[in-house]
Amino acid sequence: MSKVVTGASMSLDGFIAGPGETGFEHLFAWYQSGDVPIASTHPEIPFNLTPSDAAYLQAWLDGVGVYIVGKRLFTLTDGWGGVHPADKPIVVVTHTVPEQWIAEHPEAPFTFVTGGVKEAVDVARGIAGEKMVGVSGGDVARQCLDQGLIEEIWVDIVPVLLGGGVPLLGELADAPVLLEDPEIVAGTRVTHLKYRVR
Amino acid sequence: MSKVVTGASMSLDGFIAGPGETGFEHLFAWYQSGDVPIASTHPEIPFNLTPSDAAYLQAWLDGVGVYIVGKRLFTLTDGWGGVHPADKPIVVVTHTVPEQWIAEHPEAPFTFVTGGVKEAVDVARGIAGEKMVGVSGGDVARQCLDQGLIEEIWVDIVPVLLGGGVPLLGELADAPVLLEDPEIVAGTRVTHLKYRVR
Repeated sequence: MSKVVTGASMSLDGFIAGPGETGFEHLFAWYQSGDVPIASTHPEIPFNLTPSDAAYLQAWLDGVGVYIVGKRLFTLTDGWGGVHPADKPIVVVTHTVPEQWIAEHPEAPFTFVTGGVKEAVDVARGIAGEKMVGVSGGDVARQCLDQGLIEEIWVDIVPVLLGGGVPLLGELADAPVLLEDPEIVAGTRVTHLKYRVR
Repeated sequence: MSKVVTGASMSLDGFIAGPGETGFEHLFAWYQSGDVPIASTHPEIPFNLTPSDAAYLQAWLDGVGVYIVGKRLFTLTDGWGGVHPADKPIVVVTHTVPEQWIAEHPEAPFTFVTGGVKEAVDVARGIAGEKMVGVSGGDVARQCLDQGLIEEIWVDIVPVLLGGGVPLLGELADAPVLLEDPEIVAGTRVTHLKYRVR
């Protein structure tokens, strides 16, 4: 069965977005810190990385078969116009299905789930096959963690302090949650840490 | 002039203490994860670390000449009974000088400063000589950072999610604050990251 993993670029002080949805130019600076290109479906979101960061990101992109995202990220990006930058199918956890958006994006490989994160993970596993299910950080990842569904946390720690904003996970139902020591990959404008949940 | 550095053991989600002053058994598990002893003035706070963690901690202990702490940590520890575990002089930033505590601990190398963090750093530099001034995490470190007084941040990231509590720094006056990429030392139940403030 496919592994369920959450990952995010996070400031050293623990935020995946700054106050008022700011700070992304810092959180994702490592996507443009070198000259190794990685394919993107969106030319306005180029990936040009250092060799070690490119290898790390490519392994993530190759490993993930489907992403689960929450309504916040879906709304913030307008569903990436129906095509995720990494060209993956997407499962959106939401309370209401955006019928108009679906009508406007008939080809989009997006599935909208209203039954909560457990249903979303079941649906995503069906899509992922042997690959990983990637859960975006924030509320949805926290709900998955609270239900014991997250097996690994891949955090890209960015050398910036944002001072507030959207936390990686937020208030947990069953804190503390112990993790194993991470695999570490030093990057440029980022430090990659891969943790297994105990 | 001596360098001003803040450092703390921090959960992956950014807290130096869990909700209600909990979680210390996880945050400081790396102090007891090996068999290399480091001297402590308090036998009830033993340091027995792995070789790499011991080398890292010893470099910190050798490098710091004085600690600046806030009222929270002073109160929480009752001023360590007048003797810091690392046997260093202490500058306490406080609104009111604890005359009774001072009378009860006449030998304690503690200085109480009521003029704010700038005065505390000036006083601490006078004590530190060529060594570093170590500022404990939390409110005092944030006030120092806001005033441009912090040059390095040494974070010991612990593989635990606490879900809430006392943040490393909290809301900053001038976020975002950019840091350089860190020096990294992999540890046991900890990952040490040393950042320079840009």
